Amino acid sequence: MKSFIAYPETSDFPIENLPYGVFSTSDNDTHRIGVAIGDQILDLSVVYYLFENEKLQQAFQEETLNRFMSLGRPIWLEARSKLQNLLSAGNTTLQSNPDLRKKIFVSQSKATMHLPVQVGDYTDFYSSIHHATNVGIMFRDKNNALFPNWKHLPVAYHGRASSVVITGTPIRRPNGQTCPVEGAAPVFGPSRLMDFELEVAFFVGGPPSKLGEPVPVKEAHEHIFGMVLMNDWSARDIQKWEYVPLGPFLAKNVGTSISPWVVTMEALEPFTVDNYKQDLTPLPYLQHSDPYNFDINLQVDIKPEKSIASTVCRSNFKYLYWTPKQQLAHHTVTGCNINPGDMMASGTISGETSDSFGSMLELCWKGTKPIQLKDGNTRKFLQDNDEVIITGYCQGDGFRVGFGSCTGKVLPALQLY
Amino acid sequence: MKSFIAYPETSDFPIENLPYGVFSTSDNDTHRIGVAIGDQILDLSVVYYLFENEKLQQAFQEETLNRFMSLGRPIWLEARSKLQNLLSAGNTTLQSNPDLRKKIFVSQSKATMHLPVQVGDYTDFYSSIHHATNVGIMFRDKNNALFPNWKHLPVAYHGRASSVVITGTPIRRPNGQTCPVEGAAPVFGPSRLMDFELEVAFFVGGPPSKLGEPVPVKEAHEHIFGMVLMNDWSARDIQKWEYVPLGPFLAKNVGTSISPWVVTMEALEPFTVDNYKQDLTPLPYLQHSDPYNFDINLQVDIKPEKSIASTVCRSNFKYLYWTPKQQLAHHTVTGCNINPGDMMASGTISGETSDSFGSMLELCWKGTKPIQLKDGNTRKFLQDNDEVIITGYCQGDGFRVGFGSCTGKVLPALQLY
Repeated sequence: MKSFIAYPETSDFPIENLPYGVFSTSDNDTHRIGVAIGDQILDLSVVYYLFENEKLQQAFQEETLNRFMSLGRPIWLEARSKLQNLLSAGNTTLQSNPDLRKKIFVSQSKATMHLPVQVGDYTDFYSSIHHATNVGIMFRDKNNALFPNWKHLPVAYHGRASSVVITGTPIRRPNGQTCPVEGAAPVFGPSRLMDFELEVAFFVGGPPSKLGEPVPVKEAHEHIFGMVLMNDWSARDIQKWEYVPLGPFLAKNVGTSISPWVVTMEALEPFTVDNYKQDLTPLPYLQHSDPYNFDINLQVDIKPEKSIASTVCRSNFKYLYWTPKQQLAHHTVTGCNINPGDMMASGTISGETSDSFGSMLELCWKGTKPIQLKDGNTRKFLQDNDEVIITGYCQGDGFRVGFGSCTGKVLPALQLY
Repeated sequence: MKSFIAYPETSDFPIENLPYGVFSTSDNDTHRIGVAIGDQILDLSVVYYLFENEKLQQAFQEETLNRFMSLGRPIWLEARSKLQNLLSAGNTTLQSNPDLRKKIFVSQSKATMHLPVQVGDYTDFYSSIHHATNVGIMFRDKNNALFPNWKHLPVAYHGRASSVVITGTPIRRPNGQTCPVEGAAPVFGPSRLMDFELEVAFFVGGPPSKLGEPVPVKEAHEHIFGMVLMNDWSARDIQKWEYVPLGPFLAKNVGTSISPWVVTMEALEPFTVDNYKQDLTPLPYLQHSDPYNFDINLQVDIKPEKSIASTVCRSNFKYLYWTPKQQLAHHTVTGCNINPGDMMASGTISGETSDSFGSMLELCWKGTKPIQLKDGNTRKFLQDNDEVIITGYCQGDGFRVGFGSCTGKVLPALQLY
């Protein structure tokens, strides 16, 4: 497949990808839906009329992807097919019209990206067995690292939707309660243990489901639109003090960053790999034999202020124990209703080896093994003005299906009280 | 204060109350904002033009209260003052115009109530010391019933916003994973331990706060619009198996019912009582000396199918250890941003005595002490077709400020797999 838009083999956004995002420009601050192609954006708010389907015409004039996500897979496929056609080397509709091309293509370097979706509810799973095991060993018991429920169900908790932010948004180091000396009184002040969590999230699509009616695992795919990279910023010291017995709360509400381009399941499909081998056969409502796991290379870099970036983690989506289908089937089994635009994240994605752990907590093993950065600095946790850069891509034969990046810089804490 | 609308002393909705809700009627299915007065609703979508403030005129033509809630206290006070004036016995504007009266008043018995707000994020606190202590004794250790953090911060977790429903919505008994025999494999099937939780929730108002910027406790009141009754339906057996280590999840997503009328903080103000005496002085960011606790009588009834209702619990909002101001200040201290329409619930409100416990779990002490219903039935947990009815009111001198009711009926589980 070739596009008339030129890009290198390492571009995240070849014609095989075509992820959707929401952008604005300095001369037009309306939030518009676009598709990434090479280093360009095709402005769908301008070319919407080229889609025969009226529902698509409407959806592409919205300021978020929610309506498009609600339309369901047959219409998503129709849109993808039309876009691949319009952008292909052999099609002249857009290609051969210089005036039109000026109006409909925007350079990514000149666009400001926005949250692609109004997130209704955001759920964070805990589906990496290596991550859960690492945490279990560090904080509990080497011989019983996983809780008894972990291999029976995809453990998850509700996150805060309001604090989901787009890549590039600075994250303020929080003030909060911590209890540095066990048994002593807590203290108040800036978190000393700021961390990232390498995650991938999927967006729910299709029509809203009804309260009380589970989505069976065999229908789960119809409710999964596409994926983004995610950084679930975490203040470990605040988390440790607050999280028993009701789970993480304020330690995670400092911000949850996502990459701007939603990569569709169709673009990821060629990179499907076998599901992670599950030691225990899960209950029937969680069983599916078709592969729904994806070979997505993931990387985390840390860039201290005015310095160079160092890669601190190389991981892969495929290390996840539970598939997105299982996550969604579980989420709805008690009747929880889901809506287009809901976001469901993987949890920290750690691999088996210590250079593939998806958080500073694990990489530095609770602060006991500092990591060396290229510029001579070391880190146990994140310091002020560190920028965290998450990237991810699937490697095809001569092309990549990439996610762009999910970045954020840690700002110094506010002086409070 | 007297209104030209007649109502008895026991009415929940005298002129001293004036709660806001969203309703429709059989002849007009548009969701409209109304104010309850006696057994009537004043349709604000018709009389909006009587408010001088353009922002109010706009807000009262919306289909939810979110915009009105965003306007802030000075404008809320303006609206309240105008409404009290329009509805007072001495004012002829509405009173003396029979044609107008027909158009603007709707009998509550003929209205269908809807969710008053599009809930952005929903947080559930755990702020009743008696409830937390009861749970601690039942599931952990009588001598260390409360976790070490409990008296230092208002513990909370994120709930599911999509499954918040209006009073009257039936609640389907969920299927899910439970682990009846510790150490054995989990099983799948209908929850056997369906429960209610008696709660009161407040809605956030005022302009959205910014990510990274805490709302100080002294400004918290400006972000608290008003309150509703809430039933946080809970499947105890599912909860027990899933909740470690990340907190309650699916056991609570079966539905969270709220009463339809949002009682403003202005209507509750006369019923302010001393704050609950806190044993430990909390950290400065949680300190406020002004009373922000309310004497709200709360009651839970269970009505089996085709039978009579029995009161199973009499409690009171004033038993809460943490105030709404403390909850909100804590929620935002790490920088979590809040939006008008966010819902923050109290957690189960249990009093000191065993007839004031706010859940079946506590009332029947983990199923060991069945309660007797008036019709001869007994209950340890909820049975299919049981209706749970929560009511609440503040008793004034010759009037009540009431909440109406929050009801829901348990439907039998779906047959799955």
